[in-house]
Amino acid sequence: MKMFKSDNTSGVHPKVLKAIEEVNFEHESAYGEDSVTKKAIEKFRSVFEKDVDVFFVTTGTSANVIGLSGALLPYEGVIAPVTAHINVDECGALERYAGNKIIQIQTEDGKINPEMIVDTLIVLGDEHAVQPKIISISQVTELGTLYEVDEIKALADFAHKNGLYLHVDGARIANAVCALNSSFKEMLTDTGVDLVSFGGTKNGMMIGEAIVVLNDNLKGRYHFYRKQGMQLVSKMRFISAQFLAYLDGVWEENAKNSNEMARYFANELEKFDQIKLKSKVRANMIFAYMPKDLINVLHEKFAFYVNDEKEGLIRLVTSFDTTKEDIDLFINEIKNYYNK
Amino acid sequence: MKMFKSDNTSGVHPKVLKAIEEVNFEHESAYGEDSVTKKAIEKFRSVFEKDVDVFFVTTGTSANVIGLSGALLPYEGVIAPVTAHINVDECGALERYAGNKIIQIQTEDGKINPEMIVDTLIVLGDEHAVQPKIISISQVTELGTLYEVDEIKALADFAHKNGLYLHVDGARIANAVCALNSSFKEMLTDTGVDLVSFGGTKNGMMIGEAIVVLNDNLKGRYHFYRKQGMQLVSKMRFISAQFLAYLDGVWEENAKNSNEMARYFANELEKFDQIKLKSKVRANMIFAYMPKDLINVLHEKFAFYVNDEKEGLIRLVTSFDTTKEDIDLFINEIKNYYNK
Amino acid sequence: MKMFKSDNTSGVHPKVLKAIEEVNFEHESAYGEDSVTKKAIEKFRSVFEKDVDVFFVTTGTSANVIGLSGALLPYEGVIAPVTAHINVDECGALERYAGNKIIQIQTEDGKINPEMIVDTLIVLGDEHAVQPKIISISQVTELGTLYEVDEIKALADFAHKNGLYLHVDGARIANAVCALNSSFKEMLTDTGVDLVSFGGTKNGMMIGEAIVVLNDNLKGRYHFYRKQGMQLVSKMRFISAQFLAYLDGVWEENAKNSNEMARYFANELEKFDQIKLKSKVRANMIFAYMPKDLINVLHEKFAFYVNDEKEGLIRLVTSFDTTKEDIDLFINEIKNYYNK
Amino acid sequence: MKMFKSDNTSGVHPKVLKAIEEVNFEHESAYGEDSVTKKAIEKFRSVFEKDVDVFFVTTGTSANVIGLSGALLPYEGVIAPVTAHINVDECGALERYAGNKIIQIQTEDGKINPEMIVDTLIVLGDEHAVQPKIISISQVTELGTLYEVDEIKALADFAHKNGLYLHVDGARIANAVCALNSSFKEMLTDTGVDLVSFGGTKNGMMIGEAIVVLNDNLKGRYHFYRKQGMQLVSKMRFISAQFLAYLDGVWEENAKNSNEMARYFANELEKFDQIKLKSKVRANMIFAYMPKDLINVLHEKFAFYVNDEKEGLIRLVTSFDTTKEDIDLFINEIKNYYNK
Repeated sequence: MKMFKSDNTSGVHPKVLKAIEEVNFEHESAYGEDSVTKKAIEKFRSVFEKDVDVFFVTTGTSANVIGLSGALLPYEGVIAPVTAHINVDECGALERYAGNKIIQIQTEDGKINPEMIVDTLIVLGDEHAVQPKIISISQVTELGTLYEVDEIKALADFAHKNGLYLHVDGARIANAVCALNSSFKEMLTDTGVDLVSFGGTKNGMMIGEAIVVLNDNLKGRYHFYRKQGMQLVSKMRFISAQFLAYLDGVWEENAKNSNEMARYFANELEKFDQIKLKSKVRANMIFAYMPKDLINVLHEKFAFYVNDEKEGLIRLVTSFDTTKEDIDLFINEIKNYYNK
Repeated sequence: MKMFKSDNTSGVHPKVLKAIEEVNFEHESAYGEDSVTKKAIEKFRSVFEKDVDVFFVTTGTSANVIGLSGALLPYEGVIAPVTAHINVDECGALERYAGNKIIQIQTEDGKINPEMIVDTLIVLGDEHAVQPKIISISQVTELGTLYEVDEIKALADFAHKNGLYLHVDGARIANAVCALNSSFKEMLTDTGVDLVSFGGTKNGMMIGEAIVVLNDNLKGRYHFYRKQGMQLVSKMRFISAQFLAYLDGVWEENAKNSNEMARYFANELEKFDQIKLKSKVRANMIFAYMPKDLINVLHEKFAFYVNDEKEGLIRLVTSFDTTKEDIDLFINEIKNYYNK
Repeated sequence: MKMFKSDNTSGVHPKVLKAIEEVNFEHESAYGEDSVTKKAIEKFRSVFEKDVDVFFVTTGTSANVIGLSGALLPYEGVIAPVTAHINVDECGALERYAGNKIIQIQTEDGKINPEMIVDTLIVLGDEHAVQPKIISISQVTELGTLYEVDEIKALADFAHKNGLYLHVDGARIANAVCALNSSFKEMLTDTGVDLVSFGGTKNGMMIGEAIVVLNDNLKGRYHFYRKQGMQLVSKMRFISAQFLAYLDGVWEENAKNSNEMARYFANELEKFDQIKLKSKVRANMIFAYMPKDLINVLHEKFAFYVNDEKEGLIRLVTSFDTTKEDIDLFINEIKNYYNK
Repeated sequence: MKMFKSDNTSGVHPKVLKAIEEVNFEHESAYGEDSVTKKAIEKFRSVFEKDVDVFFVTTGTSANVIGLSGALLPYEGVIAPVTAHINVDECGALERYAGNKIIQIQTEDGKINPEMIVDTLIVLGDEHAVQPKIISISQVTELGTLYEVDEIKALADFAHKNGLYLHVDGARIANAVCALNSSFKEMLTDTGVDLVSFGGTKNGMMIGEAIVVLNDNLKGRYHFYRKQGMQLVSKMRFISAQFLAYLDGVWEENAKNSNEMARYFANELEKFDQIKLKSKVRANMIFAYMPKDLINVLHEKFAFYVNDEKEGLIRLVTSFDTTKEDIDLFINEIKNYYNK
């Protein structure tokens, strides 16, 4: 049965699996010196329409931490919403590995903007305080919300005006592009984003994330950061092959489906008076308040997270292979509950 | 064409690939909470004949660094031969990630023993010096040599008598077991090894290494070390499935072949007066001295590493899929050279 | 002229300076192996009425960071108010040096209590989250407020019940003891505090802070943490001598004066309708709101910090050598301003 | 009685103590914003005859570690002799605090030269290896030997030609200058040294070391490194005052005495057939081989270190206040021993 815990409970899209099989030919140089990896990097460049640096890694946490650390001196910090994955879901990997502090911004919806950040810059030049250097946002955010393209641009402009970088944690970046009817180029390159953690795993890949470096000043050193970050996979062609297939249409097919399924899910949930969405569903995550008894009943049959037990807030995530039938099973359980 | 640069230039054994395909069924919990991972961990326990803790990761460097760091306080250090992978081939990942120092032992053949180590323990209790806490050896060593089972036991006994742990970097652990006609149990469990970096990738897997914790005192905390070490893969079943197939015979089939091919290779090389092996070939690595002109000629057609340009020392590594025909091509090139 | 920027703008109490001079006899073993240091440690034990471990260091930041780091595994974190010195005034030293995360608690007055903390413990056992391990409070707090003795006891009890430690950043610990009419024993030993950063510099010493370890579980390893933390001073007797004099009455004489001067200062300020204290003055810090024009006028003649320019909030700190005359100069300037 | 364990068993030169007393006037800004510190920094500039950056710290270890870390990216390393203080006597502080690796060079006499280093540069550009970035030498070395001025220049030239920096651990820098009949300018500025750990404590100061930044590329960021390195002393004027006195002649007077006393000591020792100096005494350290029974007898009355118990190698260090009488006591004990 499909789960709604996260989009990483799904498996691998058949085209991605086929791509893996197809590169299992004889020998190739290891550590990314192979032909498949070279092609995959070129593919990224065509997608971003920019001569980006690309470094494949195996986890979202490593994409974030290695990516951020490569742009920071030890006394510099990352401005991020308190809800950020790097702040609450990575077991303190940034602090441990890189030693850099996260300067936390309170937020209700997972989003931040220049106005919310500007006061943190007062300490620039003060040796007693960590120096803000990167603004990190998640697109899609951890609360399922989205930045509009011009909101990203505003953040990038603000960052650059103040000598900072803008990083995007894109664990669900494909979902964001599809939800905005945008493109990677428009949303990331044209807005001036400096650094992206480009997610693949959650949207139909097996294992594969990429650090994408857009800012020229940050180029040329991530080879070392990745190796030292314990993320230089030897048989890299098997990650690169996934990305080649993924960027050749799979990303869009998958993200469109999970987004659409989330909207369908949300619509069905809203038909119940007892259920209230926390915010408009934009991508493939739904946050909904519902009675605790109902949550307990649903939890017996379905896998999903409860974000706030006190408030009865649950999170439902749809995947590339989620179907209406999967959702209907869940909805029917609610119907049954209320018919009792 | 097959390469001799390293055993990670090879691809994936068909049985391993098939195992990946077979677990691409519907949804499973992420982060190792899935049924495949549970089975794979049990498989490890049966192979080690001990209730070991097992943590899958994606690179050998992470297996080493996360494994070692979990057994160390910040002021404790790792005793290792200067030739150790952790010392020269991991871009300082241990120092950077864990902050621990490597106490280096000079060695000619990549091996160390209690007599070579004992003087480093003089500083125990002296706050000015890093406190030795782990002895780390590589089996197979980076110079292709092997520890006998009783040599490992002697190191483990010495370590424990002095309050230290013994760690084995087993990037090529299967090759060692086969070369010694031993077993994982006899070589690692029975000798008293505390911690193993258990390699899979180099011997026919796609991506997959394991931190195996044998010492009870070290159990219970590596979940956190792995996540903080950026190595908690979400769709873990695709690594676990590889290990299930691998531990079900693939490891032995593969290691035996690469070992046998290395012996064949060595025999052929020794027929040339101009070529001299650095040491007896035990596993799947050959270190050979040859004239520099010959090296240049061979380098035009074959991929391999030159370890020491001045001395004309090259390294040849055979893989699970290396054949006599692959080796004969190389040997014929030498023959042609000397017939000229 | 006396400053009100901080109590570290003052010099050294004559008795402390005399003590330094008196230990400038011939040779003594370095690194704390001297007779003066042994006596100073014994003095601490008599003051705490407990067999505490004591480690002298040269800065408050190092007392905090080394102290905390010695009680933490890498994936464990420190619960502290957002206002904590370790969080905002130490340039991210804890994250950089120790790699540990600070779990920040919002607070209005610089104080936290079990109710404010309890929700952070939900993540205990969850590998994705930093594991709370230490509760760190400042006494006196950075906002000049104080914990009552029973509030400290409640925090210690809560910490221990949940497997956590309680740390006190005591940069102004003497001021707190005097303000509460308490003793080091009653406030720190009897309440169950596990670890203290014991400040001396701000209250009349030249250079000298101490890490005081009360919890037996934490003893025995700080020698290494201090040396590795770059804080093992060679000619330690010159710090120890200061503490011997300090703990022999100077601490109380000094703290009483600065506390009393702060109360006098507060009373004088409150006579102006245009000035409002942020909170009742308990120790030697005054936080007061006043018109910005007045702040500008005062800043021309006096040294003090403006905490919040928008709100017109300033901080005034009295020192061991502050006199009523020093304060009257400041008050008179305000009087002059309003007579204009 | 005077000790010969190290030059930090001595106390404080009277002129230095007097300087401390003289700055114990009213209030001054903390954290180095005071007038005394400004003067002391200017004094350093005049001594170096260069517009150096200067940062005062409290330990030699922190001068080394903070100094080095500020010139390194995380994947860069420090080339140093195995005997270096940073390698063996700082409890792994560099690895722990900065995360950087020390690339160790074998040496007999504590000195290194370009020929010994050049092979470590082979890895430049190879992501698997720590990238050499700083050459660190100790002057005086830990084995009491000295670099000639042109040897330092050769190392600086070699470093710069290869894109590296040259760092000097100058715990006994004054002894070196005096022994060479040189000057700080000639030995450090003119040779092209980039970074110096400038020691004061061992040569008659109480607590005080300085990070001196000569290379313009390294300027402007050490304020942050020092604060984050837990070494920003609040009442800094009391360190600065020591340096003002020290650089005003005390350094020379003190170093000349300890050097001269070491020569006297060496001459006296050499009169015994049973005693052999390890190397010519250049500064204030003597390494001598002597019979173990004699060592035991001497140890009953005198404090000194045994470097190698097996070889009977002891270390004797003279201080700024060592006299011929102090040495004669030691020599007489030997005479008595042999008259027995």
